[in-house]
Parts: sequence; C-alpha cells; structure tokens
Amino acid sequence: MAGRPASGVPPAPSARTRVRRLADHAAYDRATIAAILDAMPVAHVGYVVDGAPVVTPTIQWREGERIFWHGSSASRMLRRAAGAPVCVTVTLTEGMSLARSGLEHTVHYRSVMLFGTATAVTDPAAKAAHLKAFMDRHFPGRWESLRPMTAQELKATAILSMPVAEASAKLSGGLPGDPAPDLSWPVWAGTVPIRLVTGAPVPDPRMDPAIPLPGYLRDYDFTRTGR
Amino acid sequence: MAGRPASGVPPAPSARTRVRRLADHAAYDRATIAAILDAMPVAHVGYVVDGAPVVTPTIQWREGERIFWHGSSASRMLRRAAGAPVCVTVTLTEGMSLARSGLEHTVHYRSVMLFGTATAVTDPAAKAAHLKAFMDRHFPGRWESLRPMTAQELKATAILSMPVAEASAKLSGGLPGDPAPDLSWPVWAGTVPIRLVTGAPVPDPRMDPAIPLPGYLRDYDFTRTGR
Repeated sequence: MAGRPASGVPPAPSARTRVRRLADHAAYDRATIAAILDAMPVAHVGYVVDGAPVVTPTIQWREGERIFWHGSSASRMLRRAAGAPVCVTVTLTEGMSLARSGLEHTVHYRSVMLFGTATAVTDPAAKAAHLKAFMDRHFPGRWESLRPMTAQELKATAILSMPVAEASAKLSGGLPGDPAPDLSWPVWAGTVPIRLVTGAPVPDPRMDPAIPLPGYLRDYDFTRTGR
Repeated sequence: MAGRPASGVPPAPSARTRVRRLADHAAYDRATIAAILDAMPVAHVGYVVDGAPVVTPTIQWREGERIFWHGSSASRMLRRAAGAPVCVTVTLTEGMSLARSGLEHTVHYRSVMLFGTATAVTDPAAKAAHLKAFMDRHFPGRWESLRPMTAQELKATAILSMPVAEASAKLSGGLPGDPAPDLSWPVWAGTVPIRLVTGAPVPDPRMDPAIPLPGYLRDYDFTRTGR
C-alpha cells in the first residue's frame, strides 16, 4: 500500500521542479520533502478547468512514497483531478524576517511543490485501508472505536493519490539577509516566529461526559502526525 | 489606489465561484471575504504553464477592492501570472472536528477563492506606494525607518494585483455533524482547535542592543494585519 521504500538516492529535479529563484534555498531529497509533508497536513491542490487554474485547499497524508487526499465523491475538484495533471503545494509559515531595507524583508517558510497526475483509488477495500491509515496518522486507534463505516459512506468518499516523485522543497530561515553595509542601519531587525498551534480538545456538549479524553488527544499536535 | 468603495451589494456568484458542495457553508459577501483575506496573509496562487497547473505560496495584502502580491522581477511565477488567468486561494485552518463516524470527521476552516486576471503594477511611484501600504499593514511606521529603497531595488521588485470581484468564501465550524442516531455512540467527539500563533520577536544578534523593540512589534499578530 505504501509504495516503494526510499532508495536514499535523491531524484534529480525535473525542468519544472528545479527551483530557479533562490536556488540555495532549494532541496530535493526525500527526507526533507517527507518532513514538510508530514508537518503540514493542509495542502493546496491546483488543477486546470477550461484552461484556467483552480486551487482548492484540502488535507493530505503521506503513505511512503505517495500522498493521498480525499473528499466527497460528488466533489467537482476530486472528479476533475482524477487522471489530470495536478500541482500539490504544502506550505508551513514559520516567521517574518525584518531586515534594514524593505527589499530584504521576507517570510520564513518551508514548502513543497509536487507535480504529477492524480489517480483515483477505486477498490473499496483499498479505500477503507487508506482512510484508516489517514485516521491512524492523526488519532491512532480511533478508527476501531467509531461507528463502523457503511458501504454507502465508502462509496460517497473519493480518494486521490499521487507519487512523491517530481517534487521540490523550498526553505527560508536564518538571520535577515541584509548586505554588510546595511547592518549598522539604526532600525530593529530580527525575526517574528509564526507557528500553527494545536489547542486543548473541546468536547461536544451532546457527548456523555463520562467518556474520557482518549490518549491520542492528550498530546495531539496537528503538525506532528507523521511520526 | 485602493479601488472602488464597497457598495454593500454582494456580487452574485459566477459559474465557477458558486460553491456546489456544502453550499450552506458558502458566502459571497464582501465583509466575509475581506475578513478572511485580512486574517491570512499567506495565499496560494495558481496559474497554468504549458497546460499544467502550478501553485505557488506567497503573501497577499488587500487594499480596498483589490489584492496584491509581490516578489522578484526575476520570478517565473510573477512573469507568467501577469496578464494571465489566476486563482488565488487563502485558507485559515481552525480545527479538527471529531465525529462518531469516519465520514463526519472534518476540518474547521475559513477559505476564500478568487478568480481573475493578474495585472502587473508597472509605474515606479505606484509600486513604491503599494510596497509601503504592505509594510504599513504589518508594521505601521516601519517603512520610514528603513534604509531607503533604491531605484534598482524597486525595479527588481514585481507587483501583481487582481480585483476581489469573482470571489467565494467557504466556512466550516460548529459541532460535529453526526446524524442524530449516531450521537449516543460511545466515543469521544468534539473539536481540537488549531491556530496560527505569532511568537515573541527575536532580535538579530548583529543589531545594536540599544535599539528598542518598536511599538508595532509589541502587539504584532500575523493574522490581525487588516485592522
């Protein structure tokens, strides 16, 4: 299910994954790319409709060398994307870098851009297994405690997948990029960190209050689900 | 510079902005759309290259009825997007909703999708004014304290813009969406909040430590720059 094991050999960038701007910030190795995908479940999926781009937010999860995303079988996005070229971009915003000149102000981030063709998972057993893998990634053990999925619910759920193959990462961080002559300019310079934080679980007031908080929610962190 | 004032009349959705799935979660009014754009500077811009989609993360800012984004004049993305159809999507992730069945699990979010044609700002004075407006939005007063921008730096900066016209918002929140018969299923249900948090500023160690923290950094919040 989870694709080929990592070979350890970083793939060469393709013409469109080769990062042109700030090429020193680019990375193509599997470990860097997997770490970003695992740290940021929110993805923006781009596809083309009648020659124009459409970008839809969704949640992705990685299983080995592939990523998956899902939604309603009635979704326009999922129907259009199956078999079509897509670009999946995942971005972690990590800070604002304040330099001595406007030009050197920048955002600290880690992002991954994947190109490829989306494939629909159609076999019902495979679909169920991928949905369980997704749930296990966020809330290990929860799947077994849920009201079991019906065949109709499974049918109403579409899953798309694409290989983590034609991929590039961009990373920006560190001290402000001022050229040396600007360093003494008398203005505050530095970084303001930005972080996606997971709060304390809020129970549904309709729930039996005797139901305890499950262990998987005690240390749940939306950005640490790939462990 | 900042476009037409809001007329108060929500524009009718176009064929592609009309939200089909979960249409009860959709909104088209200017105030809702502006609030989401102002609460989330990170945007994902989709454009089409050789028939395939490309999605690039960037920072957007709103001035009245238009949004702007910028980057290096050497950027592939900015060169390709000028004059071309683009889709700009802005997403705030606000929580994970844990229901009694797998199907009803969902993400709480607010997102905006804008369609249109990107226009390059080319007049140097207008470019400088928009860059100052961007800086003022995040760090009011900082622009005047920076090492002044050179003509060459301005030339090296490209700015794109598009109207907030063909736009839709999607909002998802509230209690888990379980149908009534599932509510008594004995599993924890509720919401785990997720929030983009701005941390304490970290000064550049190369900076003169006598320079105080500016007032605009004392209460800076990356998600509250549109006030």
